[in-house]
Amino acid sequence: MKSLGPKTFVYPTPVFVVATYDRGGRPNAMTAAWGGICCSDPPCLAVSLRRTRYTFQNILDQRCFTVNVPSADHARAVDYLGMVSGKGLDKFAETGLTPVRSDLIEAPYIKEFPFFLECRLFKTLELGVHIQIIGEILDVKVRDDLDREEYPSVEEVRPMFYAPGVEGYYGAGEFLGRAFSLGRR
Amino acid sequence: MKSLGPKTFVYPTPVFVVATYDRGGRPNAMTAAWGGICCSDPPCLAVSLRRTRYTFQNILDQRCFTVNVPSADHARAVDYLGMVSGKGLDKFAETGLTPVRSDLIEAPYIKEFPFFLECRLFKTLELGVHIQIIGEILDVKVRDDLDREEYPSVEEVRPMFYAPGVEGYYGAGEFLGRAFSLGRR
Repeated sequence: MKSLGPKTFVYPTPVFVVATYDRGGRPNAMTAAWGGICCSDPPCLAVSLRRTRYTFQNILDQRCFTVNVPSADHARAVDYLGMVSGKGLDKFAETGLTPVRSDLIEAPYIKEFPFFLECRLFKTLELGVHIQIIGEILDVKVRDDLDREEYPSVEEVRPMFYAPGVEGYYGAGEFLGRAFSLGRR
Repeated sequence: MKSLGPKTFVYPTPVFVVATYDRGGRPNAMTAAWGGICCSDPPCLAVSLRRTRYTFQNILDQRCFTVNVPSADHARAVDYLGMVSGKGLDKFAETGLTPVRSDLIEAPYIKEFPFFLECRLFKTLELGVHIQIIGEILDVKVRDDLDREEYPSVEEVRPMFYAPGVEGYYGAGEFLGRAFSLGRR
């Protein structure tokens, strides 16, 4: 086995776009790959942010945020949303994405993305350069044209993932099998 | 937008196999999808476990664990490792996977998988039915036959991801672009 050292290297990591309002009601969105579901009940999602991020302050101020899941079509916009700060810039205007006010929480969601999670700030945990923000998932909302009875499929959503180390974005590949089933004899 | 309710639904989630020794030195492995990288410095990874899990007790006892990243070839074994408890069962014998003792920590890694992270217990956080286990990443080790100079590529590793809701495993798909580059004008 070859050693790479203590790196934040794992496959896959997600591509989440966290959307918030600042105190003045101005929408912002940033891309985050350090995060994931962290509890089934209460349903929670974690996302780690640097405390210098505009989004970090917005979440502390508003106590809520949305986590928007992009499709592979949005890779270019998503990369942009992770590269620049929204402090002096309207990232929605720059990308052509549309912020829409949530009915449930004081946060915008991104109209063009397949689905999003509405989260209320539940806990924070200081780790080092990143602070973990844990949101309780209050609802998941899916774009109307993804008109499945329940969960939209991977084939419809076409999610992307981020590969650290090699710093690439990848799409979803072939179906390998059903969970809690494939492993049965 | 159509409401799905407060579900732990997001794409993608990872497929991690957490490997530990129990107090008697017996190796165990379990699959977990609630987790991800959570801090860049110190480099940390979070994985959420139910407190009833054998692995949970093993981590509290040994204060360390490995996170093994399977390739798509291992989908069947991985599903099995997430379906049964290792309390009265040798899951390595059942799957044919090989536990090898880490040189660095008191935990085994899975020889057949492309790479693994050696983690020391850093923090725990009670959330609800799941407890978040945060490990400091001490090293990342890659199988010798993946003979790249630095990070093994997505194409070599062929990672899989888990899709909650639809409960499916998927492989990695097409390269979409380079991060911190694609979004530049």
